[in-house]
Amino acid sequence: MWSPLQLGHSRIVRYFLAVSVAVLCCESGKVLVYPVDGSHWVNMKILIEELHSKGHEITVIRANSSWYITETSPLYTSITVYDEITSFGDFFDEYLRNVMDFQRGESSLLTFINVQKDFLSMISKAHLIQCNMIDQILQGKELVKRLEDEQYDLVLTDPAMAGGVVLAHYFKLPLVLNVRWITSGEGHLVMAPSPLSYIPMPGSGLSDKMSFLQRVKNTLFYGIIQFQEHFMVGPHYKRLCDKYFSQGCDIVRLIQSADIWLMRADFVFEFPRPTMPNIVYMGGFQCKPSKPLSEDLEAFVESSGEHGIIIMSLGTLVNSLPKDTTDEIAAVFAGLPQKVIWRHLGHKPSTLGNNTMIVNWMPQNDLLGHSKIKVFVAHGGTNGVQEAIYHGVPVLGIPLFFDQFDNLLRLREKGGAKILELSELNGRTFEKALKDLLSDPSYRENMQELSSLHKDQPMKPLDHAVFWIEYVMRNKGAAHLRSEFHKMPWYSYHSLDVIVVLLTAVAVIVFAIVALVKFLCCKVCYRQKVKNE
Amino acid sequence: MWSPLQLGHSRIVRYFLAVSVAVLCCESGKVLVYPVDGSHWVNMKILIEELHSKGHEITVIRANSSWYITETSPLYTSITVYDEITSFGDFFDEYLRNVMDFQRGESSLLTFINVQKDFLSMISKAHLIQCNMIDQILQGKELVKRLEDEQYDLVLTDPAMAGGVVLAHYFKLPLVLNVRWITSGEGHLVMAPSPLSYIPMPGSGLSDKMSFLQRVKNTLFYGIIQFQEHFMVGPHYKRLCDKYFSQGCDIVRLIQSADIWLMRADFVFEFPRPTMPNIVYMGGFQCKPSKPLSEDLEAFVESSGEHGIIIMSLGTLVNSLPKDTTDEIAAVFAGLPQKVIWRHLGHKPSTLGNNTMIVNWMPQNDLLGHSKIKVFVAHGGTNGVQEAIYHGVPVLGIPLFFDQFDNLLRLREKGGAKILELSELNGRTFEKALKDLLSDPSYRENMQELSSLHKDQPMKPLDHAVFWIEYVMRNKGAAHLRSEFHKMPWYSYHSLDVIVVLLTAVAVIVFAIVALVKFLCCKVCYRQKVKNE
Repeated sequence: MWSPLQLGHSRIVRYFLAVSVAVLCCESGKVLVYPVDGSHWVNMKILIEELHSKGHEITVIRANSSWYITETSPLYTSITVYDEITSFGDFFDEYLRNVMDFQRGESSLLTFINVQKDFLSMISKAHLIQCNMIDQILQGKELVKRLEDEQYDLVLTDPAMAGGVVLAHYFKLPLVLNVRWITSGEGHLVMAPSPLSYIPMPGSGLSDKMSFLQRVKNTLFYGIIQFQEHFMVGPHYKRLCDKYFSQGCDIVRLIQSADIWLMRADFVFEFPRPTMPNIVYMGGFQCKPSKPLSEDLEAFVESSGEHGIIIMSLGTLVNSLPKDTTDEIAAVFAGLPQKVIWRHLGHKPSTLGNNTMIVNWMPQNDLLGHSKIKVFVAHGGTNGVQEAIYHGVPVLGIPLFFDQFDNLLRLREKGGAKILELSELNGRTFEKALKDLLSDPSYRENMQELSSLHKDQPMKPLDHAVFWIEYVMRNKGAAHLRSEFHKMPWYSYHSLDVIVVLLTAVAVIVFAIVALVKFLCCKVCYRQKVKNE
Repeated sequence: MWSPLQLGHSRIVRYFLAVSVAVLCCESGKVLVYPVDGSHWVNMKILIEELHSKGHEITVIRANSSWYITETSPLYTSITVYDEITSFGDFFDEYLRNVMDFQRGESSLLTFINVQKDFLSMISKAHLIQCNMIDQILQGKELVKRLEDEQYDLVLTDPAMAGGVVLAHYFKLPLVLNVRWITSGEGHLVMAPSPLSYIPMPGSGLSDKMSFLQRVKNTLFYGIIQFQEHFMVGPHYKRLCDKYFSQGCDIVRLIQSADIWLMRADFVFEFPRPTMPNIVYMGGFQCKPSKPLSEDLEAFVESSGEHGIIIMSLGTLVNSLPKDTTDEIAAVFAGLPQKVIWRHLGHKPSTLGNNTMIVNWMPQNDLLGHSKIKVFVAHGGTNGVQEAIYHGVPVLGIPLFFDQFDNLLRLREKGGAKILELSELNGRTFEKALKDLLSDPSYRENMQELSSLHKDQPMKPLDHAVFWIEYVMRNKGAAHLRSEFHKMPWYSYHSLDVIVVLLTAVAVIVFAIVALVKFLCCKVCYRQKVKNE
């Protein structure tokens, strides 16, 4: 160890220089994280780990009923808020069964409509719970004082549930979003101009190349999203805004005014589209090289020989598909020369083959990065799709809900995936799709090309994301990257007032000219008449 | 030296690995550069130097009358094309005199309109000369064969003059633009959605925050730009397209379909606005730390003591302002305690003070980076403005033409500059503006903040630019970053067809309901009537 007192003049200067550089580079910040639970938390945690490793102090606000977010962690200090305990877990299994029954003609349209209504109510209820949590935080004077005293540098939040956005506004803190979805719809839609002619609406199942009828469908889907925002989600936040802000506030405008949007997408995955200067693309930031497998798993994988392996996982929301479907899938697997690893939590299929290993959990990333991997059977959640791109593995997609069809569609459009919707999923279609993916090398080639494009970036997506979080700390926001277009009334934003005035001016001029010409004609006619008489 | 034959097994593997890595990292490409002359070439040359230093082979197409682009260079091989020799040099001096005469009431409106007409004709003529050069290249069978045989990896061009864009289309080569201006207007306008409500049109002198009347003005300016494109510039390229492409082509669409746009701007300088995934911002890529001054210049600068220095340069297009104006400026300088270095090519002002050094050329970047610099008196060309931002120096702007007012406006809006238009430029106003800049520290603080924001980037702009040029080489284009919105007809792009159909559908439904209600009413009325009778 050396101290400045033991050093000569020039070394003292160098010492202080070194110290200032160290302080400049590594000055630690204080980050208030307001996450969304479930798979969204898996993403947020990766950012938290990286920020923690760089010496930043992190506070996480969590609900006491949280599925994933632990109260104690070496990474963060937590603040627990009591929410109305709701388990959406069984809801999704039930929902899926109902949708499949309807699609197979086994239930009535009325039942189906009711199920859809329940789904939307569930979403609306989730936002209501969210708002109640924020209400609880802001009512607690002690907690508010503690949050104020901490003097956080920024709020990092996922605006799919926009509680964190309201908190940032309340405490007047810079705001960084870890985002793909906002309260209603995909984040870009409220941020960057999104012409309905080539930007497919989420849930529409459309690509960026649409026929006329598809564009009509897309426009109608835009209407549905607006309806959701204005009637199902917005009102909850409006009540909260009216209670805590004398001027009120609009949740979409608060989201629009965030300093930096860390978008969980990139243009290897997403269709090219307009964007904004403060949107930073970090698609695939969660991906990393695979690690070696455990000994027994490696032995199982290696035993597949030249045929390789298939892995299947339908994510964490759904435990299993209906029994008859899983039996058919198991039978197809049993007939393949490949080995199969299947994350499956339901009953053990009666048709299970010796080549198929059923697991509660699998090291998905390590298996996707294994040289023996042939196909990934997946539901199309963002994380899995990004990992498939990263490792260049073809996907057989079975989309269940939310953005899953849209995610898989992007892979299919690029020639890397096949999609089986629930309505068409049975042993025959499953076998055909799987065999197509195994026999046609183009799927693998296309995914490998996406993988190589994804990795061909000036900076790793995670480093990029952390750079911009620290940028907001250093510069106390990013005002110069933020357009304030959302402060204009909609008719001004679209120049409708200008168009009306200019068209009126043109009309007046045309009218005046016509009137003048008429007047002159009459005069001439009159004179000729007089002359002739 | 060691060869694989002398090595053991593991070292041989390492040798081949090293060789492959070397080949992968440094594979040299072949770049065909089609530059624009003058200050645009100064920018292009910086990219060429960087590409050359990375081992890429560069071929530059130049006109025999070129002002700046030398026939021989260690950086590139040149191909010289004979153009109609035109010197626009005197034109600009003459133009400026005429504009100032008019603004001071010394010439008639008719003269002024004629001068403006001449200016537009000059621009149109420049594009015609451009098209004739391309015609000449494509007519020369030998040259065409040579260009084909070379198998270039990409065309790098500045689309302010769009000859290079036509060449890339002809030879079916990936296209990278070094761009701020295209044939008509600022590059973003044809590339990213640009709502007229908050995107100021070039030449309008407006910022991103506009009143209603300013928005009307902005819309009218948009009309002027469209007029220029369709009637003054476009037809030249259309003739060329019709001659060489059986399907014809539209020059704006060709520009829109470029793989990567290296934009000479960033959002420290530019107002925040929508952008596209294949626009890479490299604003300030030409900036670099200052080097020490020559001995005599350093002595002159140091002699300024605590007062510091002012430098003045109005760029390369104009040699000098009218005599009376320069005399007034020199008198103001003479009265200041600062030392002044002034790039001035006209007559020596009679009022020149001892504190003012007149030069033909100055090391502008080194002076701007000197600790004694106080103010930069500049015309507002992009290069000078970017250097002022880089070094954090307040600017007194005297815009002459093109984008200069717009550039300076961006600095003024951010509190780093004052602008004196030609119409208001005289000794009194010049002195006041200069003294304001010298006495109010906020100008310097604001420019220093812009400087620090500009430097706070994940990657140096020049490295970023070169990464994307090499990216296009590696991946033979950047199709996945390129939206194809420009292939749609304008009414489909704006969804006008969908709107008409949906409105018609609504009208039909409303009409049907009204008709039904009427019919039912009549029926009820009729029954009641019958009943009553």
